[in-house]
Amino acid sequence: MGIFLAGLAAAAAAQTGDPLPSWHDSAAKKAMVAFVARVTADGSPDFVPPAERVAVFDNDGTLWSEQPVYFQLAFALDRIKALAPRHPEWKEKEPFASLLKGNVKGVLAGGEPAVFEIMMAAHAGMTTEEFAAIVGDWIATARHPKTGRLYTEMVYQPMLELLAYLRIHGFKTFIVSGGGIEFMRPWAEKVYGIPPEQVVGSSIKTRYELRDGRPVLVRLPEMDFYDDKAGKPAGIHSRIGRRPVMAFGNSDGDHQMLQWTAAGAGARFMGLIHHTDAVREWAYDRASAIGGLDKALDEADARGWTVVSMKDDWKRIFPFDEK
Amino acid sequence: MGIFLAGLAAAAAAQTGDPLPSWHDSAAKKAMVAFVARVTADGSPDFVPPAERVAVFDNDGTLWSEQPVYFQLAFALDRIKALAPRHPEWKEKEPFASLLKGNVKGVLAGGEPAVFEIMMAAHAGMTTEEFAAIVGDWIATARHPKTGRLYTEMVYQPMLELLAYLRIHGFKTFIVSGGGIEFMRPWAEKVYGIPPEQVVGSSIKTRYELRDGRPVLVRLPEMDFYDDKAGKPAGIHSRIGRRPVMAFGNSDGDHQMLQWTAAGAGARFMGLIHHTDAVREWAYDRASAIGGLDKALDEADARGWTVVSMKDDWKRIFPFDEK
Repeated sequence: MGIFLAGLAAAAAAQTGDPLPSWHDSAAKKAMVAFVARVTADGSPDFVPPAERVAVFDNDGTLWSEQPVYFQLAFALDRIKALAPRHPEWKEKEPFASLLKGNVKGVLAGGEPAVFEIMMAAHAGMTTEEFAAIVGDWIATARHPKTGRLYTEMVYQPMLELLAYLRIHGFKTFIVSGGGIEFMRPWAEKVYGIPPEQVVGSSIKTRYELRDGRPVLVRLPEMDFYDDKAGKPAGIHSRIGRRPVMAFGNSDGDHQMLQWTAAGAGARFMGLIHHTDAVREWAYDRASAIGGLDKALDEADARGWTVVSMKDDWKRIFPFDEK
Repeated sequence: MGIFLAGLAAAAAAQTGDPLPSWHDSAAKKAMVAFVARVTADGSPDFVPPAERVAVFDNDGTLWSEQPVYFQLAFALDRIKALAPRHPEWKEKEPFASLLKGNVKGVLAGGEPAVFEIMMAAHAGMTTEEFAAIVGDWIATARHPKTGRLYTEMVYQPMLELLAYLRIHGFKTFIVSGGGIEFMRPWAEKVYGIPPEQVVGSSIKTRYELRDGRPVLVRLPEMDFYDDKAGKPAGIHSRIGRRPVMAFGNSDGDHQMLQWTAAGAGARFMGLIHHTDAVREWAYDRASAIGGLDKALDEADARGWTVVSMKDDWKRIFPFDEK
């Protein structure tokens, strides 16, 4: 509810005074405001019709935090623990055995196949309705290990304001995330104001079944679409069908999405959120295993894309920070 | 342009007099109008908030004709002929050899693999931008073999009116078609008023590439998603993320989409377009190789879904028919 009120506050601010009150009056903010004016002003040579005002946002590290691990991985680990009593064989079977002993290094020793096995065990095997309820329960109660906050409180207040600001100027705001589409949809509308049909993400396959005459979609342990890196332009093209006018990311996983956006005809805006604030959030970039930002940062520098420094450009990080 | 004006006329009619002037005042029309009133009236026990007013429409046989062959197959055949000079080997190679001799039976002798090979040869191997231009050129010039009309003129006037009527009542209208998503998007907004991000369909995979530093998506001869039959509920869930409130189809390929819609809590409307007019369009159902309607018709009868008879319920079929 706090988050929802913060969103309303942002919308109100956008209509009355400064639409982006949590942003310092720096170059990044000025560039965004100038761009929006340029593509929305009647008679502007760069005018973009409302139907074409598509703005896409990565989620992990762009709209909410992603440390010390992706929040969806925290969900998966909690889910494995909850399921363990029903799977006595996991006590002897890697990567579950290590995980249940709290030995994360042992899990990671299995590499990507181990992480994949954990993700599938946590995300597949139930109907889509059951999974939405599981996510809804978790997101309403689980707490972040460092801040003790709900994960949905660890969203970036300046980005909530930016989303509201863009919508007021006729933009359709989309999430384009490497995270799971069905992990985000149950709460994205309430937290970000982004409806289910504007969430693009990774997905696993589903199978249609009639159970006692009632149709269900059963989630299968098989990837359907991996919406990261070169998958992001493909996902945007397949799910949205329009090239974005604005795109925001924070890692090399967003690099191709920004390239794809930049290559469109007419005015385009590419933004990178740079995690530079070790006190209020986390500071990491080129060498980070999570949210690594290296090649995209080089291209941003070379091409003049906007790089937002969380430390220098944002007055507040989270809605719960003091104003 | 004629089609576009017809759409405007429909929108105007919806705002002033009868919103569905091409529908006879029969049970089907009354059922639709009563349903829309029931889910949109303030204080109605069946009220559906605007954000949840999702209406899905099959395309082939539901919004436009599909005889004597799916229009996308006609596109593919024309495309193979256009490409033939660049593929001298096709003269000796099936199914192309038969096709280029006009021997459709010879093509069909190869079964589904032959049709698949033709579809992939026609649809893959170019960038997404090149393909959109190819479709745009074809749809603007190709003529239907029976009527001599542009294919986009062979849309159903009563359905254009229904789409406009639903949008005026706060519905978001989506296409959910077994046809190719990128075959529909170049013209669906102009013809149906349905924007690219509200078109769900079958798709092939794409690969992201930098060509001379410019990013492109190259269309690959490999299926990504087959949006038909049990694929339709999966596609709706994955691409839209909300269960439809209204769904319209015309064949057994739409059966699971209607079941999925019907299984939602609250009021739902399921409609089947029944091709009953051999004079003004075509008459076919249970035994037809294209648009076969058998099991879905039985379930519609058993469960009271609305079956629209093109002959008896529609005053006009096409925008070019006399009023």
